[in-house]
Amino acid sequence: MITKPIRLHGSALAQALLRPRSIALIGASDDPDKTTGRPLRFLRGAGFAGQVYPVNPHRDSVQGERAWASMADLPDVPEHAFILTGTDTVEAVVRECASLGVQVATVLASGFAESGPLGAAREAALGDLVRASGMRLLGPSSLGIVNTANGMLLTANAAFAEPDLPVGRVFVASHSGSMIGALVSRGKARGVGFAGLVSVGGEADLSLGEICAATLDDPGIEGYLLFLESLRHGAALRAFAIEAARRGKPVIAYKLGRSQAAAEMAATHTGALAGEDDVADAFLKDCGIARVGVLDALLESFPLALRVALPPAGMPGPRRVGVVTTTGGGAAMAVDQLGIRNVTIEAPSAPTMERLRAAGVDTGAGRVLDLTLAGTRYEVMKATLEIMLQAPEFDLVLAVVGSSARFNPQLAVRPIIECGNAALAGAKPLAALLVPDAPDALVALTAAGVPCYRTPESCADSIAAMFARRLPAALPPIDAYSGHAASPISEAAAYALLDQLGVPRAASLTIPYAAEPPALPFDYPVAVKVCSAQVPHKTEVGGVILGVADPVSLRAACATLRANLAARAPGVRPEEILIQPMRAGLAEVLIGYRVDAQAGPIIMLAAGGIWAEVAQDRSIRLAPVDLAGAREMIAEVRALQSLTGLRGKVRGDLVALAQALAALSQLALKPEWGVREAEINPLMVMREGQGVLAVDALVLKA
Amino acid sequence: MITKPIRLHGSALAQALLRPRSIALIGASDDPDKTTGRPLRFLRGAGFAGQVYPVNPHRDSVQGERAWASMADLPDVPEHAFILTGTDTVEAVVRECASLGVQVATVLASGFAESGPLGAAREAALGDLVRASGMRLLGPSSLGIVNTANGMLLTANAAFAEPDLPVGRVFVASHSGSMIGALVSRGKARGVGFAGLVSVGGEADLSLGEICAATLDDPGIEGYLLFLESLRHGAALRAFAIEAARRGKPVIAYKLGRSQAAAEMAATHTGALAGEDDVADAFLKDCGIARVGVLDALLESFPLALRVALPPAGMPGPRRVGVVTTTGGGAAMAVDQLGIRNVTIEAPSAPTMERLRAAGVDTGAGRVLDLTLAGTRYEVMKATLEIMLQAPEFDLVLAVVGSSARFNPQLAVRPIIECGNAALAGAKPLAALLVPDAPDALVALTAAGVPCYRTPESCADSIAAMFARRLPAALPPIDAYSGHAASPISEAAAYALLDQLGVPRAASLTIPYAAEPPALPFDYPVAVKVCSAQVPHKTEVGGVILGVADPVSLRAACATLRANLAARAPGVRPEEILIQPMRAGLAEVLIGYRVDAQAGPIIMLAAGGIWAEVAQDRSIRLAPVDLAGAREMIAEVRALQSLTGLRGKVRGDLVALAQALAALSQLALKPEWGVREAEINPLMVMREGQGVLAVDALVLKA
Repeated sequence: MITKPIRLHGSALAQALLRPRSIALIGASDDPDKTTGRPLRFLRGAGFAGQVYPVNPHRDSVQGERAWASMADLPDVPEHAFILTGTDTVEAVVRECASLGVQVATVLASGFAESGPLGAAREAALGDLVRASGMRLLGPSSLGIVNTANGMLLTANAAFAEPDLPVGRVFVASHSGSMIGALVSRGKARGVGFAGLVSVGGEADLSLGEICAATLDDPGIEGYLLFLESLRHGAALRAFAIEAARRGKPVIAYKLGRSQAAAEMAATHTGALAGEDDVADAFLKDCGIARVGVLDALLESFPLALRVALPPAGMPGPRRVGVVTTTGGGAAMAVDQLGIRNVTIEAPSAPTMERLRAAGVDTGAGRVLDLTLAGTRYEVMKATLEIMLQAPEFDLVLAVVGSSARFNPQLAVRPIIECGNAALAGAKPLAALLVPDAPDALVALTAAGVPCYRTPESCADSIAAMFARRLPAALPPIDAYSGHAASPISEAAAYALLDQLGVPRAASLTIPYAAEPPALPFDYPVAVKVCSAQVPHKTEVGGVILGVADPVSLRAACATLRANLAARAPGVRPEEILIQPMRAGLAEVLIGYRVDAQAGPIIMLAAGGIWAEVAQDRSIRLAPVDLAGAREMIAEVRALQSLTGLRGKVRGDLVALAQALAALSQLALKPEWGVREAEINPLMVMREGQGVLAVDALVLKA
Repeated sequence: MITKPIRLHGSALAQALLRPRSIALIGASDDPDKTTGRPLRFLRGAGFAGQVYPVNPHRDSVQGERAWASMADLPDVPEHAFILTGTDTVEAVVRECASLGVQVATVLASGFAESGPLGAAREAALGDLVRASGMRLLGPSSLGIVNTANGMLLTANAAFAEPDLPVGRVFVASHSGSMIGALVSRGKARGVGFAGLVSVGGEADLSLGEICAATLDDPGIEGYLLFLESLRHGAALRAFAIEAARRGKPVIAYKLGRSQAAAEMAATHTGALAGEDDVADAFLKDCGIARVGVLDALLESFPLALRVALPPAGMPGPRRVGVVTTTGGGAAMAVDQLGIRNVTIEAPSAPTMERLRAAGVDTGAGRVLDLTLAGTRYEVMKATLEIMLQAPEFDLVLAVVGSSARFNPQLAVRPIIECGNAALAGAKPLAALLVPDAPDALVALTAAGVPCYRTPESCADSIAAMFARRLPAALPPIDAYSGHAASPISEAAAYALLDQLGVPRAASLTIPYAAEPPALPFDYPVAVKVCSAQVPHKTEVGGVILGVADPVSLRAACATLRANLAARAPGVRPEEILIQPMRAGLAEVLIGYRVDAQAGPIIMLAAGGIWAEVAQDRSIRLAPVDLAGAREMIAEVRALQSLTGLRGKVRGDLVALAQALAALSQLALKPEWGVREAEINPLMVMREGQGVLAVDALVLKA
């Protein structure tokens, strides 16, 4: 009798994924060079100590080892099965594994959700099967999973043929199977090793977030590198990231999709819908995940992430870099790249300069401490770094080293290694950029745990990303953001909701749709609008008439409006007409709340008018935000800088705008209201002290 | 008797710089590891066949060779002298060299213009000395000059200790001395060699542009890589670039100063004034110089520059890339980076897909041709590339190769090398991005002349930069743009100038300053302004009164204006008052002409209002521009996209705007007018068909 296994998660899941006592390789090839032959070769080559069962109905032996004809023939139930067979057979094999009590099955085959409707049906079937059985599934379309500590090279990725893989302290999780190989080979060239790597494939069951979360108890894993094609399974990723931050394990991500072309490609490549990149960006930041934009920086940033402390909530983060160099031109490249990423290059203070001169260092002038060729001496660099690392004006010290890094590492690189080690013991972070090709020096710095970079772009990208990292926002836990259909409510109902939230809105009066307008409780001119849940886009059907000047015009406007509706939306029977005084502001903005399918509840602020149309000028946060967060958002919208009193211009009421943003974002704490989307467009921003005012609102409820 | 040498330039200069028959090393050290000992060591190590004379008054021998006590003792006059002595001695040594008839002296010492007033005086003295004598001077602060073809490693840069320097076909010229070393070591790691390299130092005499121009006749030099800290000696650089383009020798530049911090650093580092980066960007583009933004791309772009043909004048350039890959994740990185640089990823057309399928290639769907792991076979990649390279829908084909590039280059890299060679013979360009660390494959591709990249950022940067390259604009020759002081002319005088150029401007009437206003030839309301060359900034002294409604108010306004001036600019005696009808437009823009100290005459278009203040939203070209150029400029200003009829908005008269821009830019053809700067702010843009109108103008004349 077969006992159904418990549905694994956490450490038990990590055990079956990364430290299984036994593994079946279903469909293992006799040819060690074939994709399906590689896992056996790699496991044996790396000396994996667990039981490995090649399963192949067509052969007695595989690569010189005994092969079993079927899973049923095995002497015991393997904890982990790597299914290497073709797409059409996967469902049956998965069913067999589940019925036998295998704990985790990893599926290599592609041809699932990414390949069209038939594949999507196949993937759904897999998902159902797994959920019913309790067995966990990695993939489909997974190139496997690797634990370097125990030689579990359970992968078909050719890159793992690499001899002498360096072992490290970070775990790599990737949407792309080929990228785990690319990272391994690029890492090896730099002496950067990994604790483990996983190609998560189609995430039919186990998502990237859940897999990483399962490994959080592993003391050999001190941080995570994520290669993300798009933002998906956001709830699990967010839960993982928050817990990783709590334990002080940095998470660094490289995410595709900055361009429309790549976003589309992610969609066709994986079958997942790609979201907007700036939503993903806000998500990662609010989850405490550092996002790098340069590929090398994904490989190079972990040592710096360990050293740059996260600022306490609400406090400003690090931003000031002190630069020491033996090569002016090389340092200028780093300075340029840091500058365009808004990192401040701080000049040594007068007391620091004093101490440097007292130590015999020829300081020169300028923001960068250029020791020049003459300063390429061990004693000079050592003394300089020791003084710079104690100077309170820097959050980080960057040493840029010229040709000596290649030929004479004892001159300028050795003191960096010595001071970099000291930096680990509590002082501020020290990082190095090597301007020549100097692979040996990079390996030596990496071995010493000193953050080091081979290009100015990666160096600056990494520093900027680590400086931008924040503790995850205090956010309510969320299970999943399912995309149930949502329907609009009327503008009047939307205003009632804004009133409950405390978002100021224009006065309004609603009258029955067919009624004659009464005397108004506010002044003319007014706006007249159809008010109905059936007409969310009022202007498109002639449902808005502006600038109505007096009672006679108002009656006429109501009649025109009814005529427009009858003509352009003949099936619709609106309930009410809404009358509102016309209001002008200093500026118009759009504020919106939305439950994003991947990122969860988000709050957005965007400039109105041409800004919104011709420039992507908006700020996004996970919701809710407090007033401080709302103020940061306002600072991020370029067009709103014209309301800050710049060049004597009239100031807008940005305090009231921050309050309105924070108030609207509170919808994230009221899931029982069922609001999926709430957009105020426009919100009029008045002069300083005169508030803000919503003059239209569209709310969608589940 | 000593004959004064002719002032060398062109090929004769190149001869003395790069192929001197004899070299003196003045101040050569006996210690081959010392900076001043290196040139002798490097020249001997590289087997330079010319005469080399170590000159050292303190020793009979240097590094085992006979040393001469002074220049006067030498058996003949060396063609080139490398002056390695200290800053204080340089002037005397240079004087001696000049008087002996040395053709070129290269000066290593720093401590000149970059180091303050004393150094600037030293540098000026050097310049005077050299101009009087006719001897040419490289430096000061030059790390030397290298010709790899003849072993002339006349440099103190430690990087040239490198054994087996690869020889190449490009010449490197750098503002930074240390960067020639960095490029040599980075190039060597990739099998990228150079024909020669020069560290131009302070350019007291020979500028980077003049040195490069001198080498244009050298058949061994097929292109140029420039490392620029800032734009300086623009006239010489422009003359060189135009001639290089005429001869089909590509010029590729990496220029610092994108950020304010780096611009400042260039200023302190070299004593030169750093200009605005977007002016430099426009300068480089209009000179036909490709600007890369990623350091690796400087090293990697030359093979692609040889293959991407420049479009004929006025024709659109290449923009469509076809992507073939064995790794979806890897290709997505390249696609993302290309996308954010506005390069189009083109899907294979239906006929191309048809041909691929007929050849047995499993094409999949999507814009990128993802052969997947299964396609990592020689025959598949070869057939695919051959078909893609013939497809008319692509301007370039990019092959992105996964792990096989490291372990099995015969699978996917070999066909790229074969097709890449074929591509040279007239077909379209083929480039390769290797996703794993695959140094051997990179070297093999480089040896075959196939453009190849190790990071997605460099790959995309290089492709975008080569696609953006244009034939140099047809520009009048200019000797230099000296910064003579310029003075404003009155608004009325500026309008007369606009009338001559054909730039439309608002009607205006000027009256004597103290006069009572007459009946006006245009309608009220009007603007009243002080009109005087002495008051260029009218609003600051209350010299502008707007919205004056009738004759009584006009008289009062004139009185107020005179009172304002008397109070706020008591010393000034303005000549006239200018009266102008108030005009409103659909939008306000700023158009400006300026003779930039480095870039020469430029024309600028910027959005008015908050756009100009909070966003850098402007377009710059070298002047003059024709209508096509002016239209391109309009397309580059984001705010003006709101005038193109977007979303049903009213169209602005962009035809008239283009005409006004082109007309203003004609100032570049009228140097005899002496206009240094002409700014129209604002220029009102009316509705389509209604023109544009300058309502203020400030002109500075030399």
